[in-house]
Amino acid sequence: MSNKTLPIGIFDSGVGGLTVVAEVIKELPLEDVVYFGDIARTPYGSKSKETVIKFSREITHFLVDQGAKLIIIACNTASSVALDLLKGEFDRPIIGVIQAGVSTALQVTRNNRVGVIGTSTTIVSGSYVNELKRLNPNLTVISQACPLFVPLVEEGWVNHKVTTLVAEEYLSPLKDNKIDTLILGCTHYPFLKPIIQKVLGEGVVLVNSATEMARITRKTLKEEGLLREENSDVTYKFYLSDTSANFIKLGERLLGEKMRVITQRM
Amino acid sequence: MSNKTLPIGIFDSGVGGLTVVAEVIKELPLEDVVYFGDIARTPYGSKSKETVIKFSREITHFLVDQGAKLIIIACNTASSVALDLLKGEFDRPIIGVIQAGVSTALQVTRNNRVGVIGTSTTIVSGSYVNELKRLNPNLTVISQACPLFVPLVEEGWVNHKVTTLVAEEYLSPLKDNKIDTLILGCTHYPFLKPIIQKVLGEGVVLVNSATEMARITRKTLKEEGLLREENSDVTYKFYLSDTSANFIKLGERLLGEKMRVITQRM
Repeated sequence: MSNKTLPIGIFDSGVGGLTVVAEVIKELPLEDVVYFGDIARTPYGSKSKETVIKFSREITHFLVDQGAKLIIIACNTASSVALDLLKGEFDRPIIGVIQAGVSTALQVTRNNRVGVIGTSTTIVSGSYVNELKRLNPNLTVISQACPLFVPLVEEGWVNHKVTTLVAEEYLSPLKDNKIDTLILGCTHYPFLKPIIQKVLGEGVVLVNSATEMARITRKTLKEEGLLREENSDVTYKFYLSDTSANFIKLGERLLGEKMRVITQRM
Repeated sequence: MSNKTLPIGIFDSGVGGLTVVAEVIKELPLEDVVYFGDIARTPYGSKSKETVIKFSREITHFLVDQGAKLIIIACNTASSVALDLLKGEFDRPIIGVIQAGVSTALQVTRNNRVGVIGTSTTIVSGSYVNELKRLNPNLTVISQACPLFVPLVEEGWVNHKVTTLVAEEYLSPLKDNKIDTLILGCTHYPFLKPIIQKVLGEGVVLVNSATEMARITRKTLKEEGLLREENSDVTYKFYLSDTSANFIKLGERLLGEKMRVITQRM
């Protein structure tokens, strides 16, 4: 059904997934990538579980139609609520961001006190907490929804005193509970790393799942015999459900000139 | 085609439109209302013109299928980019929020310096500025996008020091330009009236278009012979494209027990 020369499919609700694409390309420079960014319906983080599942299923079908040999769900919200379901419905490997973040956090923590931040839907789903506790029942996990972080990043206020104030308010329960590791459970949050690090102090390790996810992707492709070994014309194709100058600007900065953008309304 | 006993159709991208529904019900207590809230694809304010037009057209078709005798576009973003188009495509009256806000502002201003705040797409569309200038070419209009106001309202931070700081930053060009009237060009913004008034000072009149829009609706229905004169069983039907506990809570507070909510995915 699948073969090595087919592309890796990646999707996210918006621009955040580009950070995942950048890590995948660094780890797997011979693979083609087909990306779907659901700009028209972003953000997912405040939407119901049922709606996020419906959108994720539509997009997975679309990527499979484009020939994707493996699917990466770069969106934390979609991974939280749709990963297990989609794994049962499609006949190729699907990788979610949750497990990657969890596995890194478990390796990093020394005091077994781990924090998780994400959108409302991600946090309410409990998927990070459940996965962390399943692998280490002795862990103390403190989770916190940070719904204003995405709009602050999209407004470009990544260095603004307002963002510091918001971060202080959201992160104070995590600080009070003396976590030593924090999972950044949303692809937008790495842009706020400097502020989050400053608020929590240097003693707390911030876990960005994208790097680990790229490593898991390589491992999975290898196991399935799907790893590409040569490619003289690597292509990155980006389907967006809406036009977005912002996406193209950020994408070209992260990935260079190789991206090809196509508008694909849903 | 239409008759008096049919409902008024109202749509918005989310919960904000409820403030418009409340005003319409107060002004027209004998009318039935059918509402569509596009919770699954909210917010519209950061999306492209083409996408907002596509969504607005789909919803107008849906409301017409439900028998709406008149359509109110409660969403400022949708009114800005889709009103004229939809007026040409459908055979019944369609009322947008822009004209209502503009007509009130023109009556209210004494120094002919008017401010407009709204989402990015509303402000970039220029529709408020164009309409104000068309009716009074001598007006000085200062407009400002305030993309963080909607997420702040949705986070419930309507009384928070962060919101004051954000308002001070967004509103300072309006203050510097000595406006005496400010159009709140987004249905979420009336929730921030106290903070906006405090930042701008008591000398500035804040225009909420919903009241004027209800008045225009009454006038239009009367002119078209569509005003309902009796109704022993007034019903308010709310179709939402996603489930939303928040919507129902706010709706029941504003409208009482009469609302019937149906999930209608698009």
